[in-house]
Amino acid sequence: MENFADRLIQAIEAKQTPCIVGLDPRLHLMPTFIIDQASQQHENTGDVVREAIASFHRRIIEVVADLTPAVKLQIAFYEQYGIAGLQAFVDTVALAKQNGLLVIVDAKRNDIAATAEAYANSLLGRTDMLGTLHPIYDVDCITVSPYLGSDSLAPFVKVCAEYGKGIFVLVKTSNPGSCDLQDKTVGASGEPLYLDVARLVATYADQLVGARGYSSIGAVVGATFPSDATTIRSALPHSIFLVPGYGAQGGTAETAMPCFNADGLGAIINASRSITYGFAGKAISPTDFDRSVAEQLRDMVTAVREAMRCHLPSGPAQTPS
Amino acid sequence: MENFADRLIQAIEAKQTPCIVGLDPRLHLMPTFIIDQASQQHENTGDVVREAIASFHRRIIEVVADLTPAVKLQIAFYEQYGIAGLQAFVDTVALAKQNGLLVIVDAKRNDIAATAEAYANSLLGRTDMLGTLHPIYDVDCITVSPYLGSDSLAPFVKVCAEYGKGIFVLVKTSNPGSCDLQDKTVGASGEPLYLDVARLVATYADQLVGARGYSSIGAVVGATFPSDATTIRSALPHSIFLVPGYGAQGGTAETAMPCFNADGLGAIINASRSITYGFAGKAISPTDFDRSVAEQLRDMVTAVREAMRCHLPSGPAQTPS
Repeated sequence: MENFADRLIQAIEAKQTPCIVGLDPRLHLMPTFIIDQASQQHENTGDVVREAIASFHRRIIEVVADLTPAVKLQIAFYEQYGIAGLQAFVDTVALAKQNGLLVIVDAKRNDIAATAEAYANSLLGRTDMLGTLHPIYDVDCITVSPYLGSDSLAPFVKVCAEYGKGIFVLVKTSNPGSCDLQDKTVGASGEPLYLDVARLVATYADQLVGARGYSSIGAVVGATFPSDATTIRSALPHSIFLVPGYGAQGGTAETAMPCFNADGLGAIINASRSITYGFAGKAISPTDFDRSVAEQLRDMVTAVREAMRCHLPSGPAQTPS
Repeated sequence: MENFADRLIQAIEAKQTPCIVGLDPRLHLMPTFIIDQASQQHENTGDVVREAIASFHRRIIEVVADLTPAVKLQIAFYEQYGIAGLQAFVDTVALAKQNGLLVIVDAKRNDIAATAEAYANSLLGRTDMLGTLHPIYDVDCITVSPYLGSDSLAPFVKVCAEYGKGIFVLVKTSNPGSCDLQDKTVGASGEPLYLDVARLVATYADQLVGARGYSSIGAVVGATFPSDATTIRSALPHSIFLVPGYGAQGGTAETAMPCFNADGLGAIINASRSITYGFAGKAISPTDFDRSVAEQLRDMVTAVREAMRCHLPSGPAQTPS
């Protein structure tokens, strides 16, 4: 089973960018033509919801498939619509895979022992259903929360090793409240808690380093605290960082740079709202919507490429010649 | 909307016990008659899975409904079976409510801003679907992880206030790895991180105290670390503790006692495997299965009642006379 980090780096090089797109369904922010079309096709509310989410994402995926290595699905925005939302989650995962995109699910799951195994099996591995192993969601990578400790991470790492999948463990998140616990100084060293978490992640990351020198066990490090990112980068040399907070949360291409290594690799930057809801409530035609998504993503890709040229010795990741 | 803590205390007093039952579907551990019956009724694997889980829980709920105030559903064990599992989750929630049980979902969700709102809306509140507010899962209470900080808790607290619901925030969990981060000493005080988390929870708990003096904002405190529980009890006087780790994980009635206040209230103790899978792989008839569940629960209730008589000045909670 090919290492997830190797697959991700290959995709980054093929698309020539570390920028990824968040697919977060929020019905009240979608263009009216999406809701209107779905309502014309179905009567039942659940069916309308499922169709609206799937068709919204079908458009976006077709626009971005050649421009980005991966999509990130925030599962809360699917779960909020109940069973219909989860069916739309399954639809969206399938659409993304059919279009050659890696699928990262922002699930922030965490639990212990058999419970953590259940999450890992359904999202990344296989579930035993009546004596047969079935793939359930079968995505490439998920985010995981670390508060429960090492025995909450180990079951995910085991499934990643077995199925060539990855996790990003929350280390330093992009929100203002991340200071409440993550920045607490611990022990005699006076170092922040997030650095302890980074070191815990490193012990697992070392176990799953691929051919390109990066591990399938990565870290979530927000684009909003660049000096913290520098510290974490040193503690986790082999981990890829999933960098949220770009755009709507105030992170920029510049503030994301400390998440990269000098080789121009080591991070992917996610933007959700600024790309998929960039039209912000305006009445918009299908063609203008597609154009808006492509433009917003191209602007982000350009901004990140420029920042990498200025800040990183090797510049942006290039396809090996 | 009646305060969740008041509703929970009322149920504890009505059933004369703080012991609750975990409903964690694990097909390979279920009695063979459950799987056989479901397989005879349906052909499609998903339908068999949904029927097996629902009929397993129907039996358990009918046995325990008069003996326990609440059930705790570990959502990972439903999610592991995909859409069919989530449908069985919806079925189980409905069955429990119909039988007058409070429903606690062990989801350990955590995120920020609009994402946390999405989780809170679907699990506890209402989701806006095409302009109308719909209840989705509509359970009484969920568990929440604190690593993201205060802005990851606030959206849940807001929904709890609006809909009379509750949360239990992970403070000190029952697993061995809980020492990795939760026990780290922070700042100059040399106090453990879990105490900082408890104080953060207290700021929210103070906002939702009900008529009985307890808050709808509670804490998860494992039965496996009694001296830590004593410390946390002092820091969180108004919070109810959800106490996992009883039975299969090594916690006992004795080790759970520090989670209670002197009034005999302030905690609920959960057992899952030891009650619902107490027959442990033995071939068992439907009647013997029902008897096993009732016996295991009655043994737990008795053990906890005895421990409360010995350790708490007021003994077990009594219906006010």
